[in-house]
Amino acid sequence: MANTSTNMRLRLPITCIVLEVILIILFGVAVEYDHDAGGQDLHKNHSHDPHDHVYENSFYYRYPSFQDVHVMIFIGFGFLMTFLQRYGFSSVGFNFLIAAFSLQWATLMQGFLHSLETGGKIHVGVDSMINADFCTGAVLISFGALLGKTSPVQMLTMAIFEVALFAVNEFILLNVLHAKDAGGSMTIHTFGAYFGLMVTRVLYRPNLDKSDHKKTSVYHSDIFAMIGTLYLWMFWPSFNSAITEYGDAQHRTALNTYFSLAACTLSTYAFSALVNSEGKLDMVHIQNAALAGGVALGTAGEMMITPFGSMIVGFSAGAISVLGYKYLTPFLESKLKIQDTCGIHNLHGMPGILGAVVGAITSFAATKEHYGDGLKDVFPKVMSGTPVSTQAGMQALSLLVTLGIALLGGLIVGFILKLPIYGSPSDSQCFEDDVYWEIPKEEDGCQEMAAVKAVEEAEKLNG
Amino acid sequence: MANTSTNMRLRLPITCIVLEVILIILFGVAVEYDHDAGGQDLHKNHSHDPHDHVYENSFYYRYPSFQDVHVMIFIGFGFLMTFLQRYGFSSVGFNFLIAAFSLQWATLMQGFLHSLETGGKIHVGVDSMINADFCTGAVLISFGALLGKTSPVQMLTMAIFEVALFAVNEFILLNVLHAKDAGGSMTIHTFGAYFGLMVTRVLYRPNLDKSDHKKTSVYHSDIFAMIGTLYLWMFWPSFNSAITEYGDAQHRTALNTYFSLAACTLSTYAFSALVNSEGKLDMVHIQNAALAGGVALGTAGEMMITPFGSMIVGFSAGAISVLGYKYLTPFLESKLKIQDTCGIHNLHGMPGILGAVVGAITSFAATKEHYGDGLKDVFPKVMSGTPVSTQAGMQALSLLVTLGIALLGGLIVGFILKLPIYGSPSDSQCFEDDVYWEIPKEEDGCQEMAAVKAVEEAEKLNG
Amino acid sequence: MANTSTNMRLRLPITCIVLEVILIILFGVAVEYDHDAGGQDLHKNHSHDPHDHVYENSFYYRYPSFQDVHVMIFIGFGFLMTFLQRYGFSSVGFNFLIAAFSLQWATLMQGFLHSLETGGKIHVGVDSMINADFCTGAVLISFGALLGKTSPVQMLTMAIFEVALFAVNEFILLNVLHAKDAGGSMTIHTFGAYFGLMVTRVLYRPNLDKSDHKKTSVYHSDIFAMIGTLYLWMFWPSFNSAITEYGDAQHRTALNTYFSLAACTLSTYAFSALVNSEGKLDMVHIQNAALAGGVALGTAGEMMITPFGSMIVGFSAGAISVLGYKYLTPFLESKLKIQDTCGIHNLHGMPGILGAVVGAITSFAATKEHYGDGLKDVFPKVMSGTPVSTQAGMQALSLLVTLGIALLGGLIVGFILKLPIYGSPSDSQCFEDDVYWEIPKEEDGCQEMAAVKAVEEAEKLNG
Repeated sequence: MANTSTNMRLRLPITCIVLEVILIILFGVAVEYDHDAGGQDLHKNHSHDPHDHVYENSFYYRYPSFQDVHVMIFIGFGFLMTFLQRYGFSSVGFNFLIAAFSLQWATLMQGFLHSLETGGKIHVGVDSMINADFCTGAVLISFGALLGKTSPVQMLTMAIFEVALFAVNEFILLNVLHAKDAGGSMTIHTFGAYFGLMVTRVLYRPNLDKSDHKKTSVYHSDIFAMIGTLYLWMFWPSFNSAITEYGDAQHRTALNTYFSLAACTLSTYAFSALVNSEGKLDMVHIQNAALAGGVALGTAGEMMITPFGSMIVGFSAGAISVLGYKYLTPFLESKLKIQDTCGIHNLHGMPGILGAVVGAITSFAATKEHYGDGLKDVFPKVMSGTPVSTQAGMQALSLLVTLGIALLGGLIVGFILKLPIYGSPSDSQCFEDDVYWEIPKEEDGCQEMAAVKAVEEAEKLNG
Repeated sequence: MANTSTNMRLRLPITCIVLEVILIILFGVAVEYDHDAGGQDLHKNHSHDPHDHVYENSFYYRYPSFQDVHVMIFIGFGFLMTFLQRYGFSSVGFNFLIAAFSLQWATLMQGFLHSLETGGKIHVGVDSMINADFCTGAVLISFGALLGKTSPVQMLTMAIFEVALFAVNEFILLNVLHAKDAGGSMTIHTFGAYFGLMVTRVLYRPNLDKSDHKKTSVYHSDIFAMIGTLYLWMFWPSFNSAITEYGDAQHRTALNTYFSLAACTLSTYAFSALVNSEGKLDMVHIQNAALAGGVALGTAGEMMITPFGSMIVGFSAGAISVLGYKYLTPFLESKLKIQDTCGIHNLHGMPGILGAVVGAITSFAATKEHYGDGLKDVFPKVMSGTPVSTQAGMQALSLLVTLGIALLGGLIVGFILKLPIYGSPSDSQCFEDDVYWEIPKEEDGCQEMAAVKAVEEAEKLNG
Repeated sequence: MANTSTNMRLRLPITCIVLEVILIILFGVAVEYDHDAGGQDLHKNHSHDPHDHVYENSFYYRYPSFQDVHVMIFIGFGFLMTFLQRYGFSSVGFNFLIAAFSLQWATLMQGFLHSLETGGKIHVGVDSMINADFCTGAVLISFGALLGKTSPVQMLTMAIFEVALFAVNEFILLNVLHAKDAGGSMTIHTFGAYFGLMVTRVLYRPNLDKSDHKKTSVYHSDIFAMIGTLYLWMFWPSFNSAITEYGDAQHRTALNTYFSLAACTLSTYAFSALVNSEGKLDMVHIQNAALAGGVALGTAGEMMITPFGSMIVGFSAGAISVLGYKYLTPFLESKLKIQDTCGIHNLHGMPGILGAVVGAITSFAATKEHYGDGLKDVFPKVMSGTPVSTQAGMQALSLLVTLGIALLGGLIVGFILKLPIYGSPSDSQCFEDDVYWEIPKEEDGCQEMAAVKAVEEAEKLNG
């Protein structure tokens, strides 16, 4: 049956080429440089231009943050998923492919919705680069739930829909409800997690235990995964602060996230040892739960939550995440039929909801006294008269909207991805690079040498 | 015969120490801090100095880009070459050594030529650091063609000559022909590739098949190599924009490169699957061809090529590169006797030429209308009256000059490197770290354990 | 005996949770955002505030450097120590834990001492983040001497004391003696090294040879370690310049460090080949000694030492460090009973002292002529009338103070760490992850496959 073949010889090239050609055409029609990136506007009215000082170009405020975010998307997510012993090529490689597609498509979708408000063409610059990488992050979170069980064409198809839904949800939250979510506790983490969990629920494989023995790590693969973890951890302050207002708001967001993550790391180690019968640490917890402190400050990071508040949030997020890995993930799999390969529910789902709630509470406590004139940067609506209770309500409503769009969207997209046309692997082929990649034949000559030794030893024994 | 010994006990120390002592003396004689790095000039005429605002120090415009470029040189190039199963120490380690030498020597050579124009001493600062790293990049590209077949002393010798030739070629292109090439499609990629290809041609080894079994990757080494790939990919926007004019030109270059690479990645995956009989992806293509989009925008990146144009260029570059790996590299080796270990012709050679051509065409289309006053940043000659056809002609001429100097220089240097004094490895010693490195004895105790198991099993069978 | 158990089930959670709760309470009581990070101050007196220009926010001068330093602490130190074949989880993982604790605790200790001078609360911002990371660096250096021989609870205990002593020493040097030490040759490297060496002396294990076979690297682990090396090497210019005055002082520091490291790399390769009987390079030297050039410029980096002077210092540091690994480390272990796992004496101890001496000499040569008005940035005391001989004397005195506090502190803390309550490993359990971590069962199926092959071969032979 052609439908059950995993051969990508035509499927993948056709998908990639068709998608890229469409992208190129749409970029040709609809995209132009933004004010700080294109030559003509910038220099036209030189003397009256507020940007006539070159050091005010947004590039110098945003680009270092962008590069940190970029590393998180490609190295961070990519290597975090290399923990699987026979799925390293796919983890890094499909992460790379999906991200390269998603960032282009996200530029268009986010830009299109934004241009509805501003009119005119889609403008690209360092801001759009960061926003596109953010949207890509959500897709990669969903990919984490499905890791090892899907084909690249299936994941590209998911990305087409997820990016569009992400952009719509983000637009509703930020432009309609005027919620704050600079680091994406809701738009990125909650959305990506619950969308992915619903998709994996629809794609449930009752006989996945056939490949259980490959769904584990080996010593070296866990160290590769730590590269991903550490880059995510180190650069999360840049992630949460990448798109805030300039100045103290950006500064404060990085600072809050830094303290939250540090506190989260201590609680992760504490709970990882506590839930193990021998008191041994589990790499899965360290690789993932230590990051929950960044997720949980995605909304409140730019607010005056104080280092004190940030550390409480981070500490709680680490604890919730470890407990989720230990007790909730097995429950979700056995009872709710949710097979969540990377445990995104523990790293992005619950901490994302926590972050949304913390953001709503913190916004409720916003006062002119605490923020000074900075209030207009963080809560422009409150500055112009909206009561903080309304702001907090909109934050809470944003969480509900996000969950609704993610779950409903995931349901529909899940069924689309169930079609037998994507060349997805059979149950016994899951978590195995060999299905989609040319794999080098020998492993350090180890087996060969072992066989040689075996012959020698056997010969000796046989005299 | 002493000449065929690979022993580095005296050769390497003497080479390194003599070179470093010469470098130190030359630095002592000829180098001083540039205006933004040295204290005295900076503060002398404080009130009238245009740099009296500390935020106008070039450090803050260039240093983040420099660090990204630095990562590409040491981690990017270094790890990209770790794909070989028994040559990881040499790949990372010789890359490190050659780069550390080249950047010092390039600082002198580039600074010397530049000082011919300005008079006075060689000035060093963040600009010279970036330029020196760029020159180092060209040497490392050439190293890629020779990987596994040369001694470290041989590579240092090559670097001495290649850096000098690079500086001359760069000077002709930028200061005589007034060509634009901020990201180095010509000066770095085309030059480094064709120089290295000619050297490897001269050093042709007819019996290299003796070490063919070591010229392959293993599972883990391919994942190490992906670290190199991803850092090159992520930071290429910084590479191409590191030395452009400040402001919108720098901003636009990063943006164009970002889109070019994204499009290139999709075409790389498409063509990699297409050219494989089972539709399986090949790590060699992913590791290399996905980067061709950065190479191909090295000249036009700062121009108003638009994201649309950038994506077309990136898409084409990825396709050309994969097809080169599949069909051209075997041809070059069997017919033209060019043994190109890393396939630099596919990653740097052809995409570099493509980039030069794209740059010439794009410069031909430059108008005051498109660039506004920014025209003086990108095409100062055109701004001051030179017709665009002349600029485009100079761009095209620059490609020819580059090819000429690279090929002729490579020919001569190749013969210099053929002398039997460098301790280069025999054919059967190629692609093997053991020749130049102390290698740890056991591989995870695997063989040992295998032998133990073998004994146990054999004993059981013998009852 | 409970005391000899290595079980962390209660020890580690209690330690982590108690420490984090104390940290959170102290942060709640004593910490507030600094001027550039908190909203209210910043915007209060907008019109008269020198920081009313957003681009003057310290975030934009410091944050890229901070991120580089952050990478050095978590990836650099973490991966540098993964060279041990069975201790990769602990190297990266305990590095992560200790650092996450230390940076919080250092923020409090450094801030507390600083607030003694300024009055008021502890202020946090990008400056405090960098300083806290610096202090963490010293703790991780000490950890390097003890690597493989201690429990995580023991290391957290050490960090509690070492951070406090670090802060006191730093305060004496910078605020009492008014010494200059922006990159921490004394405060970080000398202090961390001699503190750690004294602790490991007190914790001497006469029977450590029981685990000698695990105190070695394997092929892949050495490549992992090179990731750490290269990130430390590449970002050291950012480390040394992270906390200097803005502008030319910061620029110059990065530049000097860059040249010092390049020269150091060549001398490292030279001496590594020279001291090996077959002229083969030793990964231990490359991984460590090539970094000594950064350590040795930690004090003088911001001074007008010139690239020439920097290269001489770097070259010397590399030579000293390699010779230390080859000849001094075995002597220290056999004669002085100092078991220094990572050889921190060679990488941080001797080069740190060298750096302090170079700093004293360079400061003695400071003149208004060389520094211009920049003198007030580098030597504010000299600018206001203190003779350079006094400044140089204070630099020398600072080294003695640092050595005194480090050695005495290490002695006392060593005895505290000798208490049998930390669950430290037995001699035969050293350098083994299995003591504190859940370890994946199989190694790439290698042993299993070997056994299968053994059976097949044995069966054949038994025909």
